[in-house]
Formats: sequence, structure tokens, C-alpha cells
Amino acid sequence: MFYHIKELQYQARPERPDPLLAKRLQEILAGKFGEMTVAIQYLLQGWNLRGDANSKYKDLLLDTGTEELAHVEIVSTLIARLLDNAPWQDQDAIAAQNPMVGAILAGMSPMHAIYSGLGALPSDAEGYPWNGRYVTATGNLLADFRDNLAKESGGRVEAARVYESTTDRGVRDTLAFLIARDTMHQNQWAAALSELEENEGFVAPGTFPQERERREFSYVFFNFSRGEQSAQGRWARGPSCDGKGVFQYVTNPQAMGEQQSLPPAPPYIHDTPP
Amino acid sequence: MFYHIKELQYQARPERPDPLLAKRLQEILAGKFGEMTVAIQYLLQGWNLRGDANSKYKDLLLDTGTEELAHVEIVSTLIARLLDNAPWQDQDAIAAQNPMVGAILAGMSPMHAIYSGLGALPSDAEGYPWNGRYVTATGNLLADFRDNLAKESGGRVEAARVYESTTDRGVRDTLAFLIARDTMHQNQWAAALSELEENEGFVAPGTFPQERERREFSYVFFNFSRGEQSAQGRWARGPSCDGKGVFQYVTNPQAMGEQQSLPPAPPYIHDTPP
Amino acid sequence: MFYHIKELQYQARPERPDPLLAKRLQEILAGKFGEMTVAIQYLLQGWNLRGDANSKYKDLLLDTGTEELAHVEIVSTLIARLLDNAPWQDQDAIAAQNPMVGAILAGMSPMHAIYSGLGALPSDAEGYPWNGRYVTATGNLLADFRDNLAKESGGRVEAARVYESTTDRGVRDTLAFLIARDTMHQNQWAAALSELEENEGFVAPGTFPQERERREFSYVFFNFSRGEQSAQGRWARGPSCDGKGVFQYVTNPQAMGEQQSLPPAPPYIHDTPP
Amino acid sequence: MFYHIKELQYQARPERPDPLLAKRLQEILAGKFGEMTVAIQYLLQGWNLRGDANSKYKDLLLDTGTEELAHVEIVSTLIARLLDNAPWQDQDAIAAQNPMVGAILAGMSPMHAIYSGLGALPSDAEGYPWNGRYVTATGNLLADFRDNLAKESGGRVEAARVYESTTDRGVRDTLAFLIARDTMHQNQWAAALSELEENEGFVAPGTFPQERERREFSYVFFNFSRGEQSAQGRWARGPSCDGKGVFQYVTNPQAMGEQQSLPPAPPYIHDTPP
Amino acid sequence: MFYHIKELQYQARPERPDPLLAKRLQEILAGKFGEMTVAIQYLLQGWNLRGDANSKYKDLLLDTGTEELAHVEIVSTLIARLLDNAPWQDQDAIAAQNPMVGAILAGMSPMHAIYSGLGALPSDAEGYPWNGRYVTATGNLLADFRDNLAKESGGRVEAARVYESTTDRGVRDTLAFLIARDTMHQNQWAAALSELEENEGFVAPGTFPQERERREFSYVFFNFSRGEQSAQGRWARGPSCDGKGVFQYVTNPQAMGEQQSLPPAPPYIHDTPP
Amino acid sequence: MFYHIKELQYQARPERPDPLLAKRLQEILAGKFGEMTVAIQYLLQGWNLRGDANSKYKDLLLDTGTEELAHVEIVSTLIARLLDNAPWQDQDAIAAQNPMVGAILAGMSPMHAIYSGLGALPSDAEGYPWNGRYVTATGNLLADFRDNLAKESGGRVEAARVYESTTDRGVRDTLAFLIARDTMHQNQWAAALSELEENEGFVAPGTFPQERERREFSYVFFNFSRGEQSAQGRWARGPSCDGKGVFQYVTNPQAMGEQQSLPPAPPYIHDTPP
Ligand SMILES: [Ca+2]
Ligand SMILES: [Ca+2]
Ligand SMILES: [Ca+2]
Ligand SMILES: [Ca+2]
Ligand SMILES: [Ca+2]
Ligand SMILES: [Ca+2]
Repeated sequence: MFYHIKELQYQARPERPDPLLAKRLQEILAGKFGEMTVAIQYLLQGWNLRGDANSKYKDLLLDTGTEELAHVEIVSTLIARLLDNAPWQDQDAIAAQNPMVGAILAGMSPMHAIYSGLGALPSDAEGYPWNGRYVTATGNLLADFRDNLAKESGGRVEAARVYESTTDRGVRDTLAFLIARDTMHQNQWAAALSELEENEGFVAPGTFPQERERREFSYVFFNFSRGEQSAQGRWARGPSCDGKGVFQYVTNPQAMGEQQSLPPAPPYIHDTPP
Repeated sequence: MFYHIKELQYQARPERPDPLLAKRLQEILAGKFGEMTVAIQYLLQGWNLRGDANSKYKDLLLDTGTEELAHVEIVSTLIARLLDNAPWQDQDAIAAQNPMVGAILAGMSPMHAIYSGLGALPSDAEGYPWNGRYVTATGNLLADFRDNLAKESGGRVEAARVYESTTDRGVRDTLAFLIARDTMHQNQWAAALSELEENEGFVAPGTFPQERERREFSYVFFNFSRGEQSAQGRWARGPSCDGKGVFQYVTNPQAMGEQQSLPPAPPYIHDTPP
Repeated sequence: MFYHIKELQYQARPERPDPLLAKRLQEILAGKFGEMTVAIQYLLQGWNLRGDANSKYKDLLLDTGTEELAHVEIVSTLIARLLDNAPWQDQDAIAAQNPMVGAILAGMSPMHAIYSGLGALPSDAEGYPWNGRYVTATGNLLADFRDNLAKESGGRVEAARVYESTTDRGVRDTLAFLIARDTMHQNQWAAALSELEENEGFVAPGTFPQERERREFSYVFFNFSRGEQSAQGRWARGPSCDGKGVFQYVTNPQAMGEQQSLPPAPPYIHDTPP
Repeated sequence: MFYHIKELQYQARPERPDPLLAKRLQEILAGKFGEMTVAIQYLLQGWNLRGDANSKYKDLLLDTGTEELAHVEIVSTLIARLLDNAPWQDQDAIAAQNPMVGAILAGMSPMHAIYSGLGALPSDAEGYPWNGRYVTATGNLLADFRDNLAKESGGRVEAARVYESTTDRGVRDTLAFLIARDTMHQNQWAAALSELEENEGFVAPGTFPQERERREFSYVFFNFSRGEQSAQGRWARGPSCDGKGVFQYVTNPQAMGEQQSLPPAPPYIHDTPP
Repeated sequence: MFYHIKELQYQARPERPDPLLAKRLQEILAGKFGEMTVAIQYLLQGWNLRGDANSKYKDLLLDTGTEELAHVEIVSTLIARLLDNAPWQDQDAIAAQNPMVGAILAGMSPMHAIYSGLGALPSDAEGYPWNGRYVTATGNLLADFRDNLAKESGGRVEAARVYESTTDRGVRDTLAFLIARDTMHQNQWAAALSELEENEGFVAPGTFPQERERREFSYVFFNFSRGEQSAQGRWARGPSCDGKGVFQYVTNPQAMGEQQSLPPAPPYIHDTPP
Repeated sequence: MFYHIKELQYQARPERPDPLLAKRLQEILAGKFGEMTVAIQYLLQGWNLRGDANSKYKDLLLDTGTEELAHVEIVSTLIARLLDNAPWQDQDAIAAQNPMVGAILAGMSPMHAIYSGLGALPSDAEGYPWNGRYVTATGNLLADFRDNLAKESGGRVEAARVYESTTDRGVRDTLAFLIARDTMHQNQWAAALSELEENEGFVAPGTFPQERERREFSYVFFNFSRGEQSAQGRWARGPSCDGKGVFQYVTNPQAMGEQQSLPPAPPYIHDTPP
């Protein structure tokens, strides 16, 4: 259960309205790596986590997911303020007087006026709605925390790019806070992963016995694109990261199966007759 | 540019048809962690990679993306064979005679008959079509390879679950191959990440100067969910994973911003009047 | 069954082409509150309505749904005419000569040229395709007509905003017609709702016996966000709108359930081990 | 900013596992009318609301949105518990022994095992992911609260149907709580609407001057589907609901526009030549 | 503008309820090749068609699109009737008594009860909502009519498969009507195409001058998959279908471009450093 | 199985960066008619094709699908190069100095910077992600090859429109190659169709016996839109294209079914009471 207070976790005060920056910030709010994704992802991972022995991870997830809800609030506020007084009325006349404003009107998200009335949207910078397939919550924390680390990495890359796109000191200040939190969260998931990997081994899921996999292919690199630059990396030779094998490099990979073919379909399916 | 040969990289020979297993395998083919995702993700990361100094990573990506195309072919073949002679004709009569077959007919994907004529679909196990937002290709390899590692981890978890759901030795054999390749790919992306982290530092992107972030929040854990189990982990104290800070644990996090409020909208927006 | 005539229900004659306005009008055509939504929503509610005693509602729905098809035709025509002679050829040269036209080209929907050849699209103002989940048709008219009223309210708000964004007298004239129809439709669904509420009671569905709900929570307001401004409204005290209870205001809502926790998963699921 | 406690707002204790009921409850969690929709909808309406004079509505929205987050937690827990020990291993053998279990396996969501490891998903009962276009937040409260009322009506209808589909007393108890809250929320939005309608008038948006619409069509019913049963309702005669007009019934509606036709496209568009 | 009559174009009378068949028929209603697609596709092609000289094609499209609306009505009715009295209440008890009914309950679309109350949905057989990207309306009739022919071909294949899946004489009768109309529509679009190809040439668009394409590649077949079975077809030798070239078969296709590589990104993009 | 070489099938060398053209080319890469669609469509049709007698068609499909993968690579490269050095940093300052650049920044896809770091995306020109429902693979080649012909027709129309929109000689050169290949592929699928139609007859699927359809409606044109211009075409009289019937024109089509009505729902569904 949640309680809300109306104070923001961190301030969100642009120096001036900027509808194009508002559009770019939609990616930070509700893009694949956005605040909505991590909020719902961490909460759902927490609520779905099984086994009381895992309660410290459950707490970790719910702590962080609850903070991300505060980030959703911050970025929503930032977007709404960047839309203050957007020059929507009689666009032709405005654009004729001022090509610069014309370009802004041409480039701003039309839904920011028509659909949300100068408010934030649960959509990314292209207007594509946030959707639940962004959320990773597999029940296996090794897999989940790697996805969390990836999301915070993608998220910090995106926030850095939006930061570069503006000189608005207020927006930069808020982004500097969010970017710092991404730094923490990258560190945090890596710390948690190091614990899990110590207990379960490196390969996820750690519970699937390696005897069951075709182990002769578990540490082999196949060179399917002509040119052998890929032979220069740590993945091509030496001990594997899980400490259980040795990387091999196969320069000319060969097919091991037969020609692909299928028997005819029964007549009631009306496929092409054989 | 690509060349194709009709031999499969690895055999795909179910012991017997099983339309319900075919439906489950759609997740392996075209779910978020499926073969289609990693094929397109690695190829696009490779084609988008900038700078000739990165050519070994480009080669690594194109090698692996090209292999994943072969996995798409393998899993498509597996699905089609599991659909051989699916008992589609006159479903009522069949189900009345045999409740077991009735359950299969009730549970199989209707699109496997109606839409694809007993063939594989670019959809997941719920019939939701594969889509391009699954693909991560940020141009920043630290972020991308972490996503690759997460995808291979989620993918191996899913393949293990499908493996458990059947005793078909043919399907298990093919899955054992794919799971072994997931093992390799988890190792491989981790190996590549260790190289990148050595060069660029742990936090992605390594090029955004930490002076620009609000560093007082870069290593702080906020306890937003009541209960302090989360204080027990490595993320709550000690040196941070990037070697640049020390984790702190804040038991009672406080708001730092003001109350959230927004100025009225101009009249031409027709928001609720203030 | 339908018959079509080629005359428009109302004229659709822009004064001049305007590709940016064409893009904004896509929201009116095929956004969530657009003409396509209400056309399909009303027709489907009508066709799905059960019971001959409800035939006057069925007729009401089919009358209005059929009119909305005419609105789809009107707005499609408006969009196509606003795209007449869109300056698509050699965009760089054009933009270099005239920054104003450059801004238009930069802001117009590229799909209006590339995909539809200067025609209307079944997409909203962000290019997101219309989809069937917009349609509400629950089989319960109390729920459905409230959604209809909401759709016509959102629709009229959007049409008003597009109206404000242009001075084109032709487009404003057509919008003035569509806005008038939204006025009628808001009135109409409210009129129908007052009939239904009289018969079935206010709470939808009226057929679910209130004894089955946990009635001690049926008229209670929980103050989950700090600050008690919400105590000032009619929802916080006095008789409830359904005439069956009295609103209560709980200033400090408490949890009534236990701590959330789940038992471990079976091993064949490969969740994180407990 | 939010604080979380681990106690549930209300208990969520099924009597026994039931994977098919878990699937049905996904609609309550993350369908169009589900808890995720109303949580995000109310919060976003609250954060986007402009003008300090509206702070009681902002508080109302944030109070209720925060409660809905607790409902997301409750329903997620319910789903996870209904999936306890789902019989996933070796499905063929199980189904051969027990057709009843076979039917369950055939009908349960495969993603509940493969993708989420026996956890809740941000998807509806068909596996379709929750998406941001479900959220209505127009900036105009008259439109928004009508949508809120519709969402709570559709939501209560759905919860009633899931209630009927099971005799599990634990699940029914939790649903009885959620249904009671839907009762409150229907009453609450209606109460708020009656305030707004008193201030702004009935037609949304109240700020668009009716002189601008084509008023001769503002209270007219057009009989577009043959048969005049629709003449029997309150929408066909008498004073309109907004108190500003009189309903008229037009038995044989006529076209008022000209034949639809468009001028040829320029050659660089490569449309069909005229 | 449209007029509606309540009589169906053709009868839709199942012999008995069958919720699984109702689910399969959703594909016919609102799948990619379904009635909704062709209705909206033909109407939009008609309304978007430019040039009065094309008015016979405009009429052709509006005639057929209007008929397809009647098919939407027919299939919606069929689905609703197949859902009459679906055994939804207390599913566990029912399934325990009768495994056959249990299988039906497990396999029927849960949204047919929960979301639509035993009505048709604008979704396909997997519950995926119909969406506007299904619609092809390019403004070029040669391209559009080919898509129409493909849609009617896919549609008739699907209808034939659903026909095979049931022995219900009522449903088969309705499908026999719809299949006959698909026969007509395949013939009709082919007839219209033969007119267009006579006027504009075979290759779409006929207006793009072939001098502008790299004509040395316009009639060449590249053998990219090992094995030369593809040399046996009419596409590998002899005159081309447009009468302007001669097919050639290239057994060993070679790359004509250079190695793919990209220059580094500017630092403000924060891509992987070169 | 596939092998990759790093040389492009054809060169992709823009004369100069152009982020707006990059956005338009996303339609060619990953729109409905784009290279991703045809690549995956042809490969999946090939892998799903049943019956060894069809191996020349399987080879044809895999040859062409493999070539389309090379086109995906070409267009991805083109897009990335058009994004070289996109002026992303400090957009306000740049736009203030140069309205022309301001318009470009306003119009470019924000995801090309924020999400992909100046790389190609699996999305269309509106940022809508490519999705699997674009792919047609019915198992019936008559239906499939007609869809292939339609895709190549729509694709060539789109490529022609993008060609017209730029004077960049490098981009035009690459498009001239792709357009030539579309010419070949239109010819090729038509050639293959003429073979199939000779064997199976014109109507797809050729295996559904026409006795089963309601043949009295198989060659009838219904004039549902007032006006008889549609009587002027080849579809209105004379022998049908399949050589099995004679087209008839029905000027005043009549309903053949009864009034649409449905019986009441059972009470546990909570529909509107009858
Ligand atoms: Ca964050
Ligand atoms: Ca793989
Ligand atoms: Ca309307
Ligand atoms: Ca609720
Ligand atoms: Ca039809
Ligand atoms: Ca191509």
C-alpha cells in the first residue's frame, strides 16, 4: 500500500517553456527505458518474488520501484511546465510572423495540445504509447536484475542525450538528479548481481543443470560473418566468464542439421497442394 | 549481404506432433526474448555501430546476429513440425469423442490453423505480434551489451521452462542446443562487457562527465518501502561497483522539491477553468 | 445492411491546403475519441445488444453509429483536401528558399505523402494506428452509455482545440457542425442514462446485488495523499449519489491485509531459488 | 512522492490455486478498465491539472490514484497466489492421466509460466499488454471525470463477471472489496461531476462558446437506421439535458453537402493518374 | 453518407451455441484479412481517390466497402449467437462435472464474457485488437487493387479453414455466402486490375519512368539460397511479365558495394567512443 | 543457415547528411511495405511451405528473402549515414541562429538521437515499431504470392515518393537500385502466380470446392453506393476472370436476412436487463 505526499522528491523548474523539449522528455517519462517502465518493472518484480528467504530482494525492489514512481511525477511535472502557454491559437498567423515559432509548432507533439491539454502523456517521444511488454519480471532475479541494469544503462544514455540538447538550467538540474540516480541504480543492480552470481553461478537460470544442455556448444564462437576481427576479443579464447569452460573460435561454421523440409498439410487446411 | 543454405544449423525433429507445445515455442521464436529479437537486435547494433576502431565489435555482432537468424529457422521448423496434421476438421465431433483432443483443440492457437495454415508465426505464445520496440540498439555498446546479456538470460530462462514442459526427446534435443548457445552468448556478452568496462568505466555512458550529475545522490540508497531488509545487501554499504563512491543507506528519505502545482492553461486550450 | 450516397452529410471545404492542419485532424478522425471510434463503438454496442425489450436502445445506437460513419467520411475528405498539392518534391530546395515551407515539410506527417499519397489515414495525430481496444461495448448499457458520454466529451474538447488552432473558415465551419453534433450526442447519452439509472439504479451493473460487496467500504473516501483539500468536495460528506449511503472521509487510511509474501515456486519453473 | 508499506490494503487469499482464474484476473489488473489504468489515469490527471484553484480536485485525484496503486498490488498478489504450484512439468503425461488438468494446462496463459515464472503480468486476459492509450487525461475535468465514471462502471461490470465465474471464497472476498470501492468511485466521480456541471454547464468543454457551433444541429436526432423505435426515448423530444435546447427528431435525414470528390494529385506523388 | 436497415444482407443462424467457434470467427471479423479490414480499406481508398476521371473506381470502391460493412454486421451477429448462454457461472463446478465443458471454458476467449458480455469484439482470434495499419490505401489503384486481391484471397483461405472446423449447418451456410462473395471480389479486383494494367502498364506505379531505375537489375533473379531449384520457374527465363525485359538467372550473386562502415558520432551523442 | 559478408549488395552513399530524409527512409526500412516486412515474409513463407513437390517455390522464397535481408542492411546504412553529425547539441541556440536548422531539428525523429544514437530503427516514418502482423504467410501460395505482389507494388510506390522528395544523388542512386529490384520482384511474383493459377485455378484457395459456396452470389456485383458509374467496368458484365461465371450487376441490392436481434444474456453475465 502507498502513501503520497505532494512535495516532489526533487525540483522540476524549467527556466522557460519549450514544447520541443517537452516532446523529447516524453522518452524519459514513458519510453522503453523511461521512468514508467522501471517503476512498474521493479514493483512487479517485487510483488512476484517468491520465497521469504528473498525478502531483502523484495524490499530492495519495492524501495526502488517506489522511488521511480516519484521520478514519474517529477518528469510529468517537467513536461507540463515546458508546455506552459504553448502558442497553439491560430497557428498559421503565428508561423507567418515568426518562422522560428512556426518550426516549433510544426515540430511539437500535436497530442500535447489536442489530447492532453498541455499535460504529460504516457507515450514516448514519437507518441507511441507505453506498453506492458517493456516490463521484464521473469521470477528469476539473475535475469531480472540484468534487465534492470540494462534499463538503467539505456536510461542514463538517453537522459545524457536530452541533457545535451538543451541549455535550460532548470531542466539540466533535474536531469542531473535523475542521472545521478541512474548511476546509483546501475551500481545497485550490479552489487545485487554479484551476490546472486556468487550463490547461483553466472549463467541464468542457475538451476537448469548444465548436463542437460548440449555442452559441446556452450563455449564455442561461430564466425558467421566473413572476416575474423571477432577473433580479437576475450570471448574468442581463454577461460569462459562462468569459470566452467574455455572459449573456442570456429572460423568456418558448418550446418549440423539436414535440409529443411516439411510434409504436406491435410486437405482441410487448404495449403498449397503438394 | 547474406547467403543461405538449406541445411539447418542444428536438427529440429520432434518425436510427435503437439500443437500446444507449438504454441509455447512461439515465445521462443518471437517473444520479447525470442530468436527474432536477438537476430534483429545484434544485426542492427552491428550496422549502426560507428567508428572503424570498433570493427571487432561490429564483427562480433554480425557473427552472432547471423547465427540467430539460423535459430529463427530452427525454431520455425520445430513449430511447423509440431503442427503436422493438427486435428482441425470438424472440431466438435472430435472433441465429443475424445476430451483430451478436445482440450488440445481448445488450447491450440487458432491462428496456427486459420492464419498460417500449420506454420510458424511472428508472434509470441499469446499471439501478440513481435514488434520493433523489443530491439535495443542505442549506439552505446556498454548499454547494448548489457541488454544483450539480459536478453540471453531471459531467453535461457524461458527455454528451460519450455524444456520442462515436455518429454518429447526431439524437442528437448533442439532446446538443449539452443540453451547451450544461450550459455555461450551470456558468457560472450559478459566477456565483451568486461573489456568495455575496463576502457570506459562501469557507468554507462562512460562519456558523460560525472561532474555534471548531482553527485551527492550517486551512491545513496533510499528506503522508500517500510522495513529495512534492504539494508542487508552489498548495495547498502561499502564501496560502489564503479569504484568511485561509497554506498549510503537513507532510512527515512525526504522530499527535496516543493509541492507540485502548475499555472493555468491559456483559454484557447479549453482545460478546466482555474 | 447499409446504403451509401455520395453526398456528404455536411460540407468539408477548406479555404486552402494546410498539411499541418491535416495532421492535427487525424486525431479527430482516428484518435481515441475520434469519429472511427464512435462509429464502430455505437454499431458494435447496437449489434451486441441483447433482448428485444431493448430495441429502442438498439435503434438509438444504430442511428447514431450510422451517422458517425458519415462523420468519418467528412473528416477524411477534409484531410485529403488539406493535403491538395502538398509541396513534396525536392524538399531541400524548397526549404532552402522558404523556411516557412521548410517548417511545414518538417512537421507534416511523412506518411501523408509516402504511405497514403495525400489521403487520410486510419491513424491519430502521432501516426499511431486506430485500434480496436478503443471500443467499449460491454453488453451493459449503463457502462456503455457512460463511456459514450465520455467519448463525446473528450471528442468535443479535442475538436474545440483544433478549431482554435486555425483560422481557415472552411475547416472551422465543418468543425462547428461536428461540435454541434457532439453537443447533441452528449445530451443524448445523458438523456438515455437518466432513463437507465431510473430503472436500474445508479451503480453499474445494477444487477449485482450490493449484499455481495463489502458494503462497509462502499461510501468511504480514503485520503491517501497528504493534505485534506479533498475533504472539501461533495464526495466527502452527505448522501451518496446512488441514494443508498452516506459519504465518509477517512483521514488516515490503514492497511487491512497482511504483509505481501508468496511461497516458493516449484523447481521446474526455475525462479530464483528461495 | 510516495511511501510504500508491505501490508496490503485488503487481503488477497485464494482458497486454492486456479491458473484459469489467474488468467481471467489479468483483465482486472491490466485490461482497459483494470487497476493499472485507473491508477495511472488518476495520477496523471492529478499531476497535469492546472490552476491552484483546482487543488481540491488535484488532491481528490492523487488520493484515489494512490489507492488504485494498492489495488494493483492486491490483484497482482491474487494472481500470483492462484498460480502457486501450477502443474507445468511434463504436460503431456499430466494431461494423459487427467483430462481436467489437461484442459487447465491447455487454457492457462503460457506466459504465466514461460515469461513471468508464475507471477502477474501487465497484460489483459488475452495476453495483450497494457498500453498508455487507455489513459484519459485531457486537462478538462468534465471530460476526464466522465471517463473516470465510465472506467469504474466498466471495471465493476468486469469484476462482477469474474466474481460469478468462481466459487473460491477467498477470491470472492477480495473482489467484494474491490467492487465496493468501485461503488464508491462511481459515486465519487458523479458527485464531483455534479459540482463541475453546476459551475461550467453540462456540455464539455464548458468554455467553448456555443455561438461558434452550428446550433441548428445541437439538439437534433437523426434517424439513420430504418425503424423509429428510437423516437420513444427522452433524447427524441422535450428539453435537452443541458437546459439550453429542445430535442427534435428527424425521421428522414438528408445530406447537406455536395458529392465527395477530390482534385488530382501532383505527378511527383505517383497516385493513380486521373 | 449512409443509411442502415436492420435486416441482415444474409442470414446468420447457428444451429447451436459454440464459444470456441465464436473465438475462431473473430479472425473472420477483425483479423488482418477480416471484414473490418476490407470495409475500412475499400471506403478509405474510395474517399481518398483523386481525379474525377476515376469516378467509376470510386463508385466501385464505395459499393464494395458498403457491402463489407454488412458483412461486419453478419459476422458480429454470428459470433454473438454462438455465445448465447455461454456456461460462465462457477466454472470449477461445471468443469469438474464435465471435462468437455471444462475444455470449452478453458479455451474460450475470456474477454467474450468479461469484456464484451457475450458480444463480438473488434479483435482477432488471439484477442489482438484490429488496427489501422492493416489498411492499405496508397492513392495508387494498381497497388491498392493488388492488395485488395490479396486480402480477399487470404480472407477466403481463412473462411474455408473455419468452415472445415465445424459441422454447424447454420454457420456453414453463412460462411458459404461470405466465401461466394470472396470469389466475386477476387474476380472483381482482377477485372479492375486488367483494366488498369492495360492503361498504366504492369509495374506499379506506372508513372515512375523506368529510365530512373537501375535497369540492369530490373529483370535479374539472384540465387541467394544454395541450390538451383528456383531456376525451374517462369521467373528465371523468358520474357518478363511487363513485356519490357527478359528474365536472367544469376547463380552466384556478388556484392556490388563496399564494406559497411560508419564514421564516429559527435561526442554529444554519447555513443561508444571510437 | 546463413553466412554474412560485410560488403553491401549495392552502395549506400548519400551526398550529405539529412535527418529529415533519414526519417522518411524509415518507412522504406520498416514500414508495412518495407524491407523488413518482405525479408521476414518471404523467409517465413519459405520455411512454412509444405510438400517436397513445392521445393522450387521454397527455393524461390528463400533466395528472395535472403536478398531482402541485404536490402535491410543497405537501407539501415543509408539512414545511419544521413544522420552523420546531426546537430543535436543545444538545439535552442542553433535554432535561434538558423531557422532552417531549427525546422530540421523540430522535424527530425527525436528517437534517432535519444534512442538509437544516430542509427536506424525498426520503426516506420512515424516512429511506429515494425510488427509481425505485417507478415503474410498463410501456407497457401496463391494467397501469399498475391500479397507479395501487393507488398512490392506498395513498396515501389513508396520508394518512388521518397525518390521525388530529394535531389541527393547518392540516395537517389541507391533508391534506383531498390526500385529496379521491386520491378523484378513484381514481375517475379506475377510469373509465379501465372504458374499457380494455371494449376489450381484463379480463385484462392483452389482446393475449396465451389459447390460448397453459395454460387448464386459468386459473380454478382451489388450497387450499394447510389450512382451507377460502377456499371462501366469489366467487373460488371461479361465472363468472370476465373472463366467459370458471368458477371451480373444488381442495381438495387436487397437484404436477404431477417432483422438482427439477440436473445437475452443469462443473469450471471450482468448485461443490461431485457
Ligand atoms: Ca529513474
Ligand atoms: Ca539464440
Ligand atoms: Ca461525431
Ligand atoms: Ca480499483
Ligand atoms: Ca467480405
Ligand atoms: Ca526490397
